[in-house]
Amino acid sequence: MRILSAEPLNAETPLAALEESLTPESQFFVRSHFLRPDLAPRKHFLEVVGAVEQPLRLNMADLEAMGTRTLAVTVECAGNGRTGLQPLPAGEPWVLGGVSTARWTGVPLRAVLESARLRPRVVEVLAIGADRGRPPDVAEEISFARSLPLAKARDPDTLLALQMNGRPILPEHGAPIRLIVPGWYGMASVKWLERIEVLAEPFRGYYQLGRYVYDHEDGNPPTSIRTIRVRSVIVSPQDGDAVRQGQVVVRGKAWSGEGVVVRVQIGVDGAEPSEDATLSPPISPHAWRAWEFGWDATNPGRHVLRSYATDAKGNRQPDVVRWNRYGYGNNAAQAIAITVQ
Amino acid sequence: MRILSAEPLNAETPLAALEESLTPESQFFVRSHFLRPDLAPRKHFLEVVGAVEQPLRLNMADLEAMGTRTLAVTVECAGNGRTGLQPLPAGEPWVLGGVSTARWTGVPLRAVLESARLRPRVVEVLAIGADRGRPPDVAEEISFARSLPLAKARDPDTLLALQMNGRPILPEHGAPIRLIVPGWYGMASVKWLERIEVLAEPFRGYYQLGRYVYDHEDGNPPTSIRTIRVRSVIVSPQDGDAVRQGQVVVRGKAWSGEGVVVRVQIGVDGAEPSEDATLSPPISPHAWRAWEFGWDATNPGRHVLRSYATDAKGNRQPDVVRWNRYGYGNNAAQAIAITVQ
Repeated sequence: MRILSAEPLNAETPLAALEESLTPESQFFVRSHFLRPDLAPRKHFLEVVGAVEQPLRLNMADLEAMGTRTLAVTVECAGNGRTGLQPLPAGEPWVLGGVSTARWTGVPLRAVLESARLRPRVVEVLAIGADRGRPPDVAEEISFARSLPLAKARDPDTLLALQMNGRPILPEHGAPIRLIVPGWYGMASVKWLERIEVLAEPFRGYYQLGRYVYDHEDGNPPTSIRTIRVRSVIVSPQDGDAVRQGQVVVRGKAWSGEGVVVRVQIGVDGAEPSEDATLSPPISPHAWRAWEFGWDATNPGRHVLRSYATDAKGNRQPDVVRWNRYGYGNNAAQAIAITVQ
Repeated sequence: MRILSAEPLNAETPLAALEESLTPESQFFVRSHFLRPDLAPRKHFLEVVGAVEQPLRLNMADLEAMGTRTLAVTVECAGNGRTGLQPLPAGEPWVLGGVSTARWTGVPLRAVLESARLRPRVVEVLAIGADRGRPPDVAEEISFARSLPLAKARDPDTLLALQMNGRPILPEHGAPIRLIVPGWYGMASVKWLERIEVLAEPFRGYYQLGRYVYDHEDGNPPTSIRTIRVRSVIVSPQDGDAVRQGQVVVRGKAWSGEGVVVRVQIGVDGAEPSEDATLSPPISPHAWRAWEFGWDATNPGRHVLRSYATDAKGNRQPDVVRWNRYGYGNNAAQAIAITVQ
């Protein structure tokens, strides 16, 4: 892991670990806002309150008894690639390892909401973690909390995850319960989940309106961050590597929150990208796809490779992303320089 | 050296070699447009023709007899940093090693022009190299050639260089005669110089109007590239390095074609750069200045450092440079990520 900060722990997945279809838990990126709460799974309860007919207080066994689903889901930090923005925004200095994929096993949030019986006029469902603290620009201690619109909360793939890659979730990844919101940036997948509040009006908390927003500093109101933008990374070779003349296999991953990735194009030395990489079959509608490209490295010297993913909705990675104040959503095509010997 | 292309040879100076005040000839960056002409110094002549009263044909001994000056001059390729532009323009994929400094010994071009006695209405002086070839988008074979306005040609620091760091110029650096134009990007410092043409009207050659121009693709006519933009590089530590907690010495170089560098500011983790580096005394009005900054690396984890140079004319490095079609003049502040352990 590449440590961004120790307390609270923020750490990137090493680029080489992105070769795997599923990221081992020990190498799954870690994003924390506050010091880690260590919750005892046997004593832990999830409360479901607010605009419901039947408030609930569920322990792990109650949840498991509701029936689980298992889905491979790619989770990406909204700040992943922040260090590529100019000027550099403040915030954790993620390079490209703020993304990982795991198989999450959990109870659909929908099932719990149905048990609690929503009242009329519900608009959002708020997820509150057990992690608390005081951000630098906030006067009092707050919990990490993010809301989902009702439709997304009811999506059968939005899970109250109890397991990660077939084992109980590790403390740093949100044990014992983590919300997993496929297709949305990681801030929605609230860790150390202890409370669900059903809301009749939109949530206005700090991590909803003050951070995790696109603020272009253009006078328009910031907009809340949701869906993961289409993106790809080149995993092998790595930036600065030397390779031998001849056929070079270039490998990477590509993902999008809007729809499955349908195409990855490779550009060499500043030419328009025209050649297509070969995509591996999707392992899940919510996970990255592996891709591979046979590069005919005939000319010795340094060459620049870029990869551009396109998703089923027609979204394609840009060369430059519009700068925003907190440095989110930088899905610009990555360029790596490779020397052919 | 980091080879960008083998034939013709284009190679970057390794970042570590930028620590030196003067770059050793073996590590001085190499920019070639065509295959290298190998000229025999003893048989070589420089012709001075065009709008002159007295055309000249000078051998090396004739030139040396005119009296020499020695100046430390930083030469930077106009495409240096091209790989940092998005979208990536075609062209040699320079990262940041397309810059070097040497002590050049030569005859002021002015002295030769005086010997040749310029006619009235001279506007430019054209320098033509012995290197010839056919660029991909040109129908016929051409020489590498660039012109200077008369005032710059008459600047006493514009040299017909015969030596580099006290020794005859090496073949790849333009032996036996190279024009050195302090303060201008490297395309003006014509290598393998064999002909000076004094012109009564502006030169309209390929490397004057077709390349080495800022073309913003905005409908306005491209403008010819001249002066080196203010810039700095961080030489140590290097991007991705790990350092031990405590005081870390950050070192680099800074230069500008417009005037001596008077300030280098360091920005950490996206904060406004506010702390000043200490500048070493200038070794020449035309050479980079070394700078050093004591970074108080108290917090473990990853941090991003950037350096911003300002010159005597008040020019300061930007965070982003306006994109241009051929990828020149990218003097945006460099960002490096360092892990404090």
